[in-house]
Amino acid sequence: MTTPLIDNLQYANFSPAIFEQMRAGGVDAVHVTVAYHESFREMVLNLERWNRWFEDYPGLIFKGTTAADVSRAQETGRTAIFFGFQNASPIEDDIGLVEICHQLGIRFMQLTYNNQSLLATGCYEAHDTGLTRMGRAVVAEMNRVGMVVDMSHSAERSTLEAIDHSTRPIAITHANPHWWHPALRNKSDAVLKALTRAGGMLGFSVYPHHLKDGSECTLDSFCQMIAEAASRYGAAYLGIGTDLCQDQPDSVVEWMRVGRWTKAMDYGEGSAAQAGFPPMPNWFADNRDFGNIRRGLLATGLTPTEVDGIMGGNWHRFYARGFGPA
Amino acid sequence: MTTPLIDNLQYANFSPAIFEQMRAGGVDAVHVTVAYHESFREMVLNLERWNRWFEDYPGLIFKGTTAADVSRAQETGRTAIFFGFQNASPIEDDIGLVEICHQLGIRFMQLTYNNQSLLATGCYEAHDTGLTRMGRAVVAEMNRVGMVVDMSHSAERSTLEAIDHSTRPIAITHANPHWWHPALRNKSDAVLKALTRAGGMLGFSVYPHHLKDGSECTLDSFCQMIAEAASRYGAAYLGIGTDLCQDQPDSVVEWMRVGRWTKAMDYGEGSAAQAGFPPMPNWFADNRDFGNIRRGLLATGLTPTEVDGIMGGNWHRFYARGFGPA
Repeated sequence: MTTPLIDNLQYANFSPAIFEQMRAGGVDAVHVTVAYHESFREMVLNLERWNRWFEDYPGLIFKGTTAADVSRAQETGRTAIFFGFQNASPIEDDIGLVEICHQLGIRFMQLTYNNQSLLATGCYEAHDTGLTRMGRAVVAEMNRVGMVVDMSHSAERSTLEAIDHSTRPIAITHANPHWWHPALRNKSDAVLKALTRAGGMLGFSVYPHHLKDGSECTLDSFCQMIAEAASRYGAAYLGIGTDLCQDQPDSVVEWMRVGRWTKAMDYGEGSAAQAGFPPMPNWFADNRDFGNIRRGLLATGLTPTEVDGIMGGNWHRFYARGFGPA
Repeated sequence: MTTPLIDNLQYANFSPAIFEQMRAGGVDAVHVTVAYHESFREMVLNLERWNRWFEDYPGLIFKGTTAADVSRAQETGRTAIFFGFQNASPIEDDIGLVEICHQLGIRFMQLTYNNQSLLATGCYEAHDTGLTRMGRAVVAEMNRVGMVVDMSHSAERSTLEAIDHSTRPIAITHANPHWWHPALRNKSDAVLKALTRAGGMLGFSVYPHHLKDGSECTLDSFCQMIAEAASRYGAAYLGIGTDLCQDQPDSVVEWMRVGRWTKAMDYGEGSAAQAGFPPMPNWFADNRDFGNIRRGLLATGLTPTEVDGIMGGNWHRFYARGFGPA
């Protein structure tokens, strides 16, 4: 069996056309977002939509819950879809929902989405108080059942405390190093060192606001950044999490940023002049373009084994360690 | 492996003491009720309570979802707990919740609980209109995912239509024949013939309102009734579903009867003079008393093989056929 190709974060406006592109691109597994600001019941409606897709397109996709499902995807020529939350809203104020959500197939949960949550502080808050009382309890429960802590949208101190408090490796599923592009959403060298030293994973994002030079970022710049990250943190702790938002209307990026938490507009990483989804870089438009990244990584001098790991092998091993009971 | 002992309906006030009694009584599997009138979210709170029990008492009980779990219970000296609904309230008006609930482990669902539901008519309504439009759709969806239709509290026509419309055998998990004790909740000969001819199962109840002579019913009368049912319908379609409500306060029987659907009192099978839970017959008080029923059945002249089937083997085969995708 060859090393699988895994994209560990997408929030596309999914459709049979995109599932066909996953197959055309040879993508064996995708971690998809099933909640930003939803309550538990609202999130379940999103799972119901996925169940309909699984029922209607069984030749293209199926629900993944274990690392073995990635191998099954390879063997059967389909894409395994793994579920995750970008926010803790679906567990409401109820720690019992962690296990319920795990039973429904949720394998990643961000403790925060930009703002303060019941669990921790998001990267857009002025003050970062670290993990809350409930946050510490929920991280322990996630560790117990096998749901991975994801700190992609969390603030520095909260992230460091999550890495420290978690008894199992955590993930930053979609972000880039702050030293390459100093966006609020990108991560400090200190965070990335602590993350990877604890066995955690970083997934590199191609969302333009996370890229140096934004939509104009070159493939070479992106891949040189990954090569530098490999030299700093070790190639085995790196993967891809494109944050692909393909085919989404701009109303969705507004929902992602504003949810129901304010009556005002908040542009997040954008601005009034650039309020919508930014254009993607010309070397990554959809699931058929992973070959560009693979070729770009090989051109930096990373070994084929290292590149295979970054393109999916590392996430696959991480799934095997992370998704079962402690 | 000996034939397992299965009780296919209990709604006790569960506790470690009752789990110990299950073990003392050698009960390998129990189908427990996790909803009467609950919304989806409220039902999930009940599942959370069970998850805590599974976490806290792993040496006594575990969550069962397949027939193989019954064998695993026998091999590990524990009791497998299977989940079911006595009403369709947890799926609300949303057919997508059928599969979600199956993913959470629900294996039986009654289409009605005494009253008209969105799906069918309950046994206390004056007019029985049979399966509704949504009822037909939901039965098909239950057939698809492997959730068993249970018509214990449903009216005659609705029950006959469910048997006819379902492409897989259905169950009446807890009731007795009307010809033995003409309670509204007990089932007509026509229903029991149609049920069993279609491969469905009847679980005999020891809830006193379903028994001839109520709490004074003798073990011999109960077992002679079962022997007669075996001669009419075939022993292979019969099992036990005690409806054990051990240790419940009378406030719970009021909740079961009234829920939130009326502001008036409804005594259901009881009366103003006998509003609470009736006393159990002296030969069945808790999970340690299944030996009495087994001995009583053998005394009727049923063969040991027939008695083994009624005490659990028949439900075990039914689980194997009923709980997976079609």
